Amino acid sequence: MPLSLRRVVIGAPIATERMAHERLPILLALPIFASDALSSTAYASEEIMAALLQAGTSLFNITPMLALAIIVLLSIVVVSYRQIVMAYPSGGGSYVVAGDNLGPLPAQIAGASLLVDYILTVAVSSSAGIAAIVSLVKGLNPSSNIAQYTVHMCLAAVLFITLINLRGAKESGLAFALPAYSFLVLMYGMIGYGVYQYFSGHLTPVHSAVDLQNARYLNENTGRIAFENFGELSRFAGLFLILHAFASGCTALTGVESIATGTQAFKEPASKNAAKTMGILAVLLGTIFFGLSFLAVHSHALPPNATLMSPAAIEAAHAAGREVTLGETVVSQIGRAVFGTSLLYIGMQIVTCIILILAANTAFAGFPRLCALQAGDGFLPRQLANIGDRLVYNNGIFILAFFSALAIIIFKGDVHHLIPLYAIGVFLCFTISQGGMVRRWLRLREKGWQLKAAVNGFGCFCTFVVMIIFAIVKFRDGAWIIVIVIPALVFLFLKIKAHYRSVAKQLSLEGYRPAQGAQQHVCVLVPDIHRGVIPAMQLARSISSDARALHVSINPERESRVRARWTLYSRGLPLTILESPFRSLTIPVVEYVERLQKLDPGCTVMMIIPEFEPRGWFAKLLHGHAAFALAVRLHFMQGVVVVNVPYHIEAFVPVSEEEKARERELARH
Amino acid sequence: MPLSLRRVVIGAPIATERMAHERLPILLALPIFASDALSSTAYASEEIMAALLQAGTSLFNITPMLALAIIVLLSIVVVSYRQIVMAYPSGGGSYVVAGDNLGPLPAQIAGASLLVDYILTVAVSSSAGIAAIVSLVKGLNPSSNIAQYTVHMCLAAVLFITLINLRGAKESGLAFALPAYSFLVLMYGMIGYGVYQYFSGHLTPVHSAVDLQNARYLNENTGRIAFENFGELSRFAGLFLILHAFASGCTALTGVESIATGTQAFKEPASKNAAKTMGILAVLLGTIFFGLSFLAVHSHALPPNATLMSPAAIEAAHAAGREVTLGETVVSQIGRAVFGTSLLYIGMQIVTCIILILAANTAFAGFPRLCALQAGDGFLPRQLANIGDRLVYNNGIFILAFFSALAIIIFKGDVHHLIPLYAIGVFLCFTISQGGMVRRWLRLREKGWQLKAAVNGFGCFCTFVVMIIFAIVKFRDGAWIIVIVIPALVFLFLKIKAHYRSVAKQLSLEGYRPAQGAQQHVCVLVPDIHRGVIPAMQLARSISSDARALHVSINPERESRVRARWTLYSRGLPLTILESPFRSLTIPVVEYVERLQKLDPGCTVMMIIPEFEPRGWFAKLLHGHAAFALAVRLHFMQGVVVVNVPYHIEAFVPVSEEEKARERELARH
Repeated sequence: MPLSLRRVVIGAPIATERMAHERLPILLALPIFASDALSSTAYASEEIMAALLQAGTSLFNITPMLALAIIVLLSIVVVSYRQIVMAYPSGGGSYVVAGDNLGPLPAQIAGASLLVDYILTVAVSSSAGIAAIVSLVKGLNPSSNIAQYTVHMCLAAVLFITLINLRGAKESGLAFALPAYSFLVLMYGMIGYGVYQYFSGHLTPVHSAVDLQNARYLNENTGRIAFENFGELSRFAGLFLILHAFASGCTALTGVESIATGTQAFKEPASKNAAKTMGILAVLLGTIFFGLSFLAVHSHALPPNATLMSPAAIEAAHAAGREVTLGETVVSQIGRAVFGTSLLYIGMQIVTCIILILAANTAFAGFPRLCALQAGDGFLPRQLANIGDRLVYNNGIFILAFFSALAIIIFKGDVHHLIPLYAIGVFLCFTISQGGMVRRWLRLREKGWQLKAAVNGFGCFCTFVVMIIFAIVKFRDGAWIIVIVIPALVFLFLKIKAHYRSVAKQLSLEGYRPAQGAQQHVCVLVPDIHRGVIPAMQLARSISSDARALHVSINPERESRVRARWTLYSRGLPLTILESPFRSLTIPVVEYVERLQKLDPGCTVMMIIPEFEPRGWFAKLLHGHAAFALAVRLHFMQGVVVVNVPYHIEAFVPVSEEEKARERELARH
Repeated sequence: MPLSLRRVVIGAPIATERMAHERLPILLALPIFASDALSSTAYASEEIMAALLQAGTSLFNITPMLALAIIVLLSIVVVSYRQIVMAYPSGGGSYVVAGDNLGPLPAQIAGASLLVDYILTVAVSSSAGIAAIVSLVKGLNPSSNIAQYTVHMCLAAVLFITLINLRGAKESGLAFALPAYSFLVLMYGMIGYGVYQYFSGHLTPVHSAVDLQNARYLNENTGRIAFENFGELSRFAGLFLILHAFASGCTALTGVESIATGTQAFKEPASKNAAKTMGILAVLLGTIFFGLSFLAVHSHALPPNATLMSPAAIEAAHAAGREVTLGETVVSQIGRAVFGTSLLYIGMQIVTCIILILAANTAFAGFPRLCALQAGDGFLPRQLANIGDRLVYNNGIFILAFFSALAIIIFKGDVHHLIPLYAIGVFLCFTISQGGMVRRWLRLREKGWQLKAAVNGFGCFCTFVVMIIFAIVKFRDGAWIIVIVIPALVFLFLKIKAHYRSVAKQLSLEGYRPAQGAQQHVCVLVPDIHRGVIPAMQLARSISSDARALHVSINPERESRVRARWTLYSRGLPLTILESPFRSLTIPVVEYVERLQKLDPGCTVMMIIPEFEPRGWFAKLLHGHAAFALAVRLHFMQGVVVVNVPYHIEAFVPVSEEEKARERELARH
């Protein structure tokens, strides 16, 4: 984009020396780094219920228990991760930990998983944020058809976060604090008031007991209602179902990793502040998650993929293009149950949307940093290591925006369809980094290493088990994509590293002896005799007393003009005419250079190409680009140096009538 | 396209020396140059009737009379044009004649008109050719819906001719002779047999007398039937109608110009051969045109835009998406009347299609030649004057193909809609060139100049009157587009000329004194110290003992590496470190150059930029292009010469385990 527009949208450049100062205190870091994990409460309970619904609503009662199990897992991971943050104050999370303790291959596996999960964080969070708005509109006006614009709204959200992030980190921190803290206040308010209503017997369910009985799970693949009574399920199928629900709820854990990766963005002492933030985060996340799961059950909320229609009604609705599922989030239903359709409910939905969309920002902070780390190690293109002029990694931001938008388009902005891809990578990272820590304690054997190794080892074991469960129960729903993508990425990273290694080897000065006394041939191309050519001829003469001029014979008229004026303007350069039977400029010159190189192996050929450069696009269109094409062709030849001598001219200058008359006179003869 | 594919489709290159031999004898030139004019008989009679139909079919009887009037006009033009061909053996037609006798502005007006008409020739001829095929299919199977593919078929035809023409002129001549002569044989056969049937009373009309009575003109703009009995028209409206029909028929004259433009493609004596060809053409064209007009009336043919439906039936058909007009060409109807749906009828339609599509080839011969002439004079971009490697003007061919395809798409491949744009430019050219000839005879006053001037003057007058008629009666139907486009093109041509004049003035060596003794500063960019940089440093040293090295400080690590190794590798070059607070490579270098130029006005700065160039797209993606961006930026600065020193490296080379281990060791410290 033009520089001026760029400045308005993205802001003025920031000098490198300001870099160290762009670090955040806990109060500003919490909203940025914790919003991912916190906002996952907006869909975690819902995902548990969506999975349980396959066996009807009778199992909904175990939702809070599953939430508790997940909170226990969260505590284990957070305790384990605090040890990582303390050990790695400069940040990097599982990528750095794996690289440091397990070697490059595990590090690249962790890197690939993290990159994929950052992309999915953006896709899931913006989809869930837009789902909150869609639910709000539907909650207020059930006949609204806003759902059809879901994808457009999601993409607009991604664009918005992208622009915010191109402006840089500190400004983001300020912009994100207000909605994050509003979210906390409203959530705790809703949970507190809802629990009070429940125990005082005033909580009004959003669905009647009959509706709850009739609610069905709609199989998206077959379009049919799946209905199996839990009592009728085999013991294996029952276990599978509960594990499925548990795995779905584990999405609540995503986001812990990003604090460890971004430790360096915290104010000093960075480690301590990051660990403290992680602890606060765990408490907030656990209480909200449990509270919502509890209220979801008691307000008779249904997951958005539930349907209340009979199979016949569904078929009719499909034919008419109407929606068949409820499409309202569980949090929105809880809000309506607790607050009614009051201003508090509206405010909560809006703040939920904002916090979710801003949660995607976590990924925008972490993804480019990780890319830069990997690029610095040579496993990603070096361009990703470049800091933009506002101290943010522009290229990484663009890549993240592109792929998350792609995921949104493919999965139509539906959280429930994105979830199976999510979390598997996160748990893979958890496992790798904690495994790396175990290796570290075994190696360093510093004071108290046994306890530390046990903590990390237990965390490693738990997350590994959950990852395996996730991969199995979600395989058919989409986890298989991740099982393909992560190894493919790792292969690519290793290939890139092999290339950079090759380059380094070839550029190394070790044992290098510069070629001495190699002949240098200086040639200047003379397409015609005019002012634009003289400086190039002068230059050739000044570089070498042995320089020669080349003219490619394409136009006989021009050739004779060059020959005729040669003695006058040659400055002693000998002229060689190259024949071009097929009217090409490039081929004869390339052949000439090849002949020179054959006669004098190891020589360098310097080709001086004069080019007159008119100003403006109109004038540029009116001139051939044969000289440019020749320069590009020569650039790819070994041992050839191309010298461009531009001669700048104006597109339009006044030409007197007298001059025109003389031109006509000349043309006549 | 890749070179090998290009060779298969277009053929091997042809050397310049073969150019003079690519000239055609009359028997081969006639099909190429006359096919345009001849093939216009396929729609000229039809266009007269389509215009007359506005007052019902009662006026159809005057069609042969109008044809006769047009043939008289044709004779006048051809006699007048033979004088042009004789006077200008090297070709060029009205463009050259106008430039030679009337000055540059009339020449450019003629050039603009001709270019537009070449484009329309391609559009009209291919549309009419496809109409012949559509008519054939409909004639054999009235319920066919082939008409909906009209535009696709037209575009395919244009693509086909484009490829034929990219192969070069002589091969075209051979390929076009057979269909052209088959067309003549079949046409004369049909006319002869039809006239015999008519006079022996055996000609079976294709439409009954009742159908003929009920046939109506469908106004394309309103979608309604226009029906006015001629007897009810005012005298003015009646005259307007007949002039309209006359103007429509004048499309038969298009194509005469192209022989004059392409005289140089004839075998020597070119003038005589071209004049002879023109005479033959006039006789062929006149007899076929009159014969078809005569048979059209007596076989009760109706123009394709006629409808036999009632207004109510039309509305119903529109709603159902069915066609309402007949959509069969007049020639196809004559063919069915004379031959029945026999093999002869089928053959005639196919040959008509081929000759029409090949007629477009006339334009493909003339358009690029005219472009090259105009480009040679400086009124079109010089690239259009370049002959491709098969001795044809590739760029002109591409432009013609593009714009004619555009016209086909805009006017949906409908001949009747394209005709109002056509012919106005042709008659403008006729007028200008004949006017130029009058001026020539007045100037030269050679033997018999009075008669010659009278012939050309009369031709000039007649075509001028027809042009004015055409512009008035067809203005609303589309002629207004041409009235806008031609002046716009002329303006563009003059602007281009002004630019080339400016360039010539600025490049002229008249009064030029080379700057003597101006300082030359040689700088070499050193982004790092490695093998890729050393050759550039060597070069700088060899060019000037006063050369200096520049390092832009973006990465502190690299800066310290450069400083540390400098003494070892500097070769005596002094090192200047340029600060870059915003991490840009370009800005500090540009600022440095500007400082140099300020301190030493008039100096030349030579900037040597080393660049390592890895092989393959994968490797190229993995390297930044900051050096390239810098080179481009410097290229646009006055007084700066950019020297690119590429260092070629392989994308992948084997790296031993030992080397990897050493690399890891180095990274650790």
